Amino acid sequence: MPTESKVDVLVLGAGPAGLMCAQGLKRAGVNVRIIDKRPKKVAAGQADGVQPRTIEVLQSYGLAERLLREGNQMHMVAFYNPSPNGGIERTGRTADITAPSARYPFEVTLHQGAIEAIFLDSMRELGLEVDRPIIPTALELSHDENELRDPQSYPVKVTLKHLDFGSEGQDDTEIVYAKFVVGADGAHSWVRKTLGIIMDGEQTDYIWGVVDLIPSTNFPDIRNRCAIHSSNGSCMIIPREGDKVRLYIQLSDKDVVVDKATGRVDKEKTKVGPEELLEVARKSFSPFTIEKAGEIDWWTIYLIGQRVAQKFSVHERVFIAGDACHTHSPKAGQGMNASMNDTHNLIWKMTYVLRGWADISLLRTYEFERRKYAQDLIAFDKKFSALFSGKPRTEECQDGVSHEAFLEAFQTFGAFSCGIGIHYSPSSIPSMPNITELKHQSLTSHQTVGMRILPHVFVRAADARPFEIQDLLPANTKWKLVVFVGDIGPGKIKQIERVAKLADDLGKSTGLLKRYEDGVFEILTICATVKECLNYTDLPEVLRPHWSRVLLDDVDMFGRTGGKGYDIYGVDPSQGAIIVVRPDGYVGTVTPLEGVKDLETYFDTFLIRTL
Amino acid sequence: MPTESKVDVLVLGAGPAGLMCAQGLKRAGVNVRIIDKRPKKVAAGQADGVQPRTIEVLQSYGLAERLLREGNQMHMVAFYNPSPNGGIERTGRTADITAPSARYPFEVTLHQGAIEAIFLDSMRELGLEVDRPIIPTALELSHDENELRDPQSYPVKVTLKHLDFGSEGQDDTEIVYAKFVVGADGAHSWVRKTLGIIMDGEQTDYIWGVVDLIPSTNFPDIRNRCAIHSSNGSCMIIPREGDKVRLYIQLSDKDVVVDKATGRVDKEKTKVGPEELLEVARKSFSPFTIEKAGEIDWWTIYLIGQRVAQKFSVHERVFIAGDACHTHSPKAGQGMNASMNDTHNLIWKMTYVLRGWADISLLRTYEFERRKYAQDLIAFDKKFSALFSGKPRTEECQDGVSHEAFLEAFQTFGAFSCGIGIHYSPSSIPSMPNITELKHQSLTSHQTVGMRILPHVFVRAADARPFEIQDLLPANTKWKLVVFVGDIGPGKIKQIERVAKLADDLGKSTGLLKRYEDGVFEILTICATVKECLNYTDLPEVLRPHWSRVLLDDVDMFGRTGGKGYDIYGVDPSQGAIIVVRPDGYVGTVTPLEGVKDLETYFDTFLIRTL
Repeated sequence: MPTESKVDVLVLGAGPAGLMCAQGLKRAGVNVRIIDKRPKKVAAGQADGVQPRTIEVLQSYGLAERLLREGNQMHMVAFYNPSPNGGIERTGRTADITAPSARYPFEVTLHQGAIEAIFLDSMRELGLEVDRPIIPTALELSHDENELRDPQSYPVKVTLKHLDFGSEGQDDTEIVYAKFVVGADGAHSWVRKTLGIIMDGEQTDYIWGVVDLIPSTNFPDIRNRCAIHSSNGSCMIIPREGDKVRLYIQLSDKDVVVDKATGRVDKEKTKVGPEELLEVARKSFSPFTIEKAGEIDWWTIYLIGQRVAQKFSVHERVFIAGDACHTHSPKAGQGMNASMNDTHNLIWKMTYVLRGWADISLLRTYEFERRKYAQDLIAFDKKFSALFSGKPRTEECQDGVSHEAFLEAFQTFGAFSCGIGIHYSPSSIPSMPNITELKHQSLTSHQTVGMRILPHVFVRAADARPFEIQDLLPANTKWKLVVFVGDIGPGKIKQIERVAKLADDLGKSTGLLKRYEDGVFEILTICATVKECLNYTDLPEVLRPHWSRVLLDDVDMFGRTGGKGYDIYGVDPSQGAIIVVRPDGYVGTVTPLEGVKDLETYFDTFLIRTL
Repeated sequence: MPTESKVDVLVLGAGPAGLMCAQGLKRAGVNVRIIDKRPKKVAAGQADGVQPRTIEVLQSYGLAERLLREGNQMHMVAFYNPSPNGGIERTGRTADITAPSARYPFEVTLHQGAIEAIFLDSMRELGLEVDRPIIPTALELSHDENELRDPQSYPVKVTLKHLDFGSEGQDDTEIVYAKFVVGADGAHSWVRKTLGIIMDGEQTDYIWGVVDLIPSTNFPDIRNRCAIHSSNGSCMIIPREGDKVRLYIQLSDKDVVVDKATGRVDKEKTKVGPEELLEVARKSFSPFTIEKAGEIDWWTIYLIGQRVAQKFSVHERVFIAGDACHTHSPKAGQGMNASMNDTHNLIWKMTYVLRGWADISLLRTYEFERRKYAQDLIAFDKKFSALFSGKPRTEECQDGVSHEAFLEAFQTFGAFSCGIGIHYSPSSIPSMPNITELKHQSLTSHQTVGMRILPHVFVRAADARPFEIQDLLPANTKWKLVVFVGDIGPGKIKQIERVAKLADDLGKSTGLLKRYEDGVFEILTICATVKECLNYTDLPEVLRPHWSRVLLDDVDMFGRTGGKGYDIYGVDPSQGAIIVVRPDGYVGTVTPLEGVKDLETYFDTFLIRTL
């Protein structure tokens, strides 16, 4: 008889999507298990680009510090195009990131194994290890509607096979009953195929090679991200940790043999290896030279496919995430980021449902939000890949891609590609009339509802210490009420009265702070008053549950950081506003100080009332 | 027969001075042993203030991150004085730190045990533990002059007693032969007494009590450093990690009994305990209330003594450091800082002598530099303590200390008390004619020779990543040549030629970079050229031993940090300068780009030539 066990969430696949999911759920106290077919984590190569928004997300779990310590940073991008004298020449340098609100205005590059190690070590501290090497062999989902609707039932039966069990009569089969299953098992997802979910989209005929190496070169931009358009093909440089560099090298269909059945590169029949890839790169680099200093770390050849899964879940009990949902070109550095952000979106929702705090229908918003994002991503990737894989404009090739067209596209897509542009549509929270979430949007004219809370430095009232607000809004599964109380300095009687009224509204015995489970909300109060005048003790107690929860929109003691925060969010200091931040850092809604009723309406749509 | 062993350096005492010393020597690869009489590290109380310069020093060893994560930060100071209506009122708030160049513009407070833990954990990673509980019982220093002059001899014989050895015939005595001994064994130093070193100075009649507690209070500045001058005595608030607060409470000689023989508070005869101290504080706080929320963590009563040791070493083989050399009032938060900076000064010098890289006479500069600092510290403390312990000026007491006088003193002493003002005199390097070190001071008009290298953010040429220059000048025992090459952008032919000449001078076969042991120098090159124009490959190779060693005086891609660096150091971009930074972060000398000969003269005075 195989072993049988129960678990709240079973995560299949320990790549970036699965690891993000497992660490977040474990951190939230959820009973979670994660398995992977690989005997150990990735050693080299694979994905390696972490976008600014993803760094913010990692920081919200306390994981960014190590990423920043170990990774390389790309701040600048250089463009090279055919020179009239032959070879290539630099046409310009600009910022790699074009989203001015990025807290981390750069991309971090670090090999996937090192990124996985950050998750694995933090999970170990929380008492969770990846079970490996294990593969799923069967998955059955109950058809019983009552069971499917009950978040405490175990409607998914998964059969697992342990790959490292010997043949001496040891049973390598195991049965797991799960409340929820997350299939984060990659582009060739077994879960997706087992569920019969179709991928929409197609293969392109763009063929690229990738080589990771330590170069010896006189190329002056080897430590910048570079887009090289040469008459001998395109090349992209991604500098990496230490002295490593990744080269993306455009190949022609003469170079490789494609297996017609799978649409993938036939690596056996293709005669191109890492040395041949480097030889192609050398032609693009001319007149500069590039040689390898040591062994080649990793290499691959691929055709770009651009596809999105038709569904991201079945009955909100089995989900797919990451590459299982979307595949696209790696060159804009999106893959791992989209994957981690998929499950970041799912963690708090699943936690709330498992705790009995929210209705199970909340989980529908995962597909609603993330599938739309994946579609946008593919649309972006189509345009970007075409520009990048196209021939450069030269005297002979007037139809080619001009530097200006490429640069414009690079900058236009910038906010999207760095992840800052993620914008969840209203009504993503179920049964919520659109109008309510956006009703008071004008109160925060620069902080869009549905986008991540803007980063900004405020000064703590009690001790004038500057804090990045995102660090006070961690991914701890709580909803944050960020109360911009306006200017309540000496003589601002009217505003002080409005704030007193807000405190009364919030403190009501069946009001917002009392009607759901304890621990849903955290309050952060931001005053538009300078530090010399305001005492944190001036605030009503409900708005300062601890001395550390009152901030000021002011510079620090040396004027080095902070200030103008009300402008950043577009809040009028004579009005104020309440910005409601979801546990994943996205703004749920905005209300005026008199909007506690609106907040009750908002949360009543998906939180389960206890009063 | 007692066990006998040899060690290069024996450190006696594992408080902040001893731990700094041991970790630094171990990091430098020195054979070091550290013992302490306490069975374990300090649990609560004791010293707790880390000044801005000390944070910089800890950062140079890679130890600041944890301090900043665990500690509280004091950014603001508030002043309270007698109110005409009775009780106290706030007379102002200002920055706690008055040194505008401080990289960390705040003090960190954290209990001594947690600070010791940072050292202990980093030492453990390096393979070094404190041996405890052990006391020294005898110390003999050889009188043989040849032995004393030979850095490879073991002229110090120390007898140790293991306090935890049982009585069952186990020999608790051990003999250690050391090349050098550091006595970091506190205010009542056994080493100092054994060496017969006299303390100059005297006891004051200022008596203070200290209480560490978590308060419950309506006092609005409880999280700021506060100087309270009330008609009922003075009080200082030091907010601590978590919700803890330390109160320094002025007592009168009626409150305590002083033992005439020792000059210390007789704790048995004194009837004052923590509750009585809090009661005294309450009177100063009126009309605000303060109660303890939970148990009192730690408390003490002390008389301020202000003394400096006459000598800091005997024959440069046995040194004393930290409280063993200087005692003073704790209220300006200097003690632990002076202690750590004592041994920070000693680490690299001892390392160079032990490696055979420098003449043993280099060690004389320890006393020269640190004793002068200690004398300045006591002079500062006398003025500050008198102001702080004096009665406040009121209508009845016109001779009292006015808020204005106190504030002025607070700000005047600020640069000194935060450690930024430490200024080592010229000729601290032996046999060096004063003139040479200061000859070219005018080339860096804002970077004083003898003071710590100013912090500033520069952008790395190869990848436009911003870096704090102090992070590129770690305490790794190397001397850094920071070469401000000036503006070498397109068309700056003259400056480009000067830089080429400098590269030739540096590259000479018997020149600066070749005439001493390998590993003495690191080069960092700073160009006054914007990032869009300069390629790091434009620099001569000797000035870019690695792509990461070329910086630009420019802002980052978003203009958030960096820029105006030449102004900060007072270097003319059409001239340039070479700033020589000692391994401990202090500027040794400055020369023009043509000054390689001067540098050779400078280093020849104390480094041992190999060519």
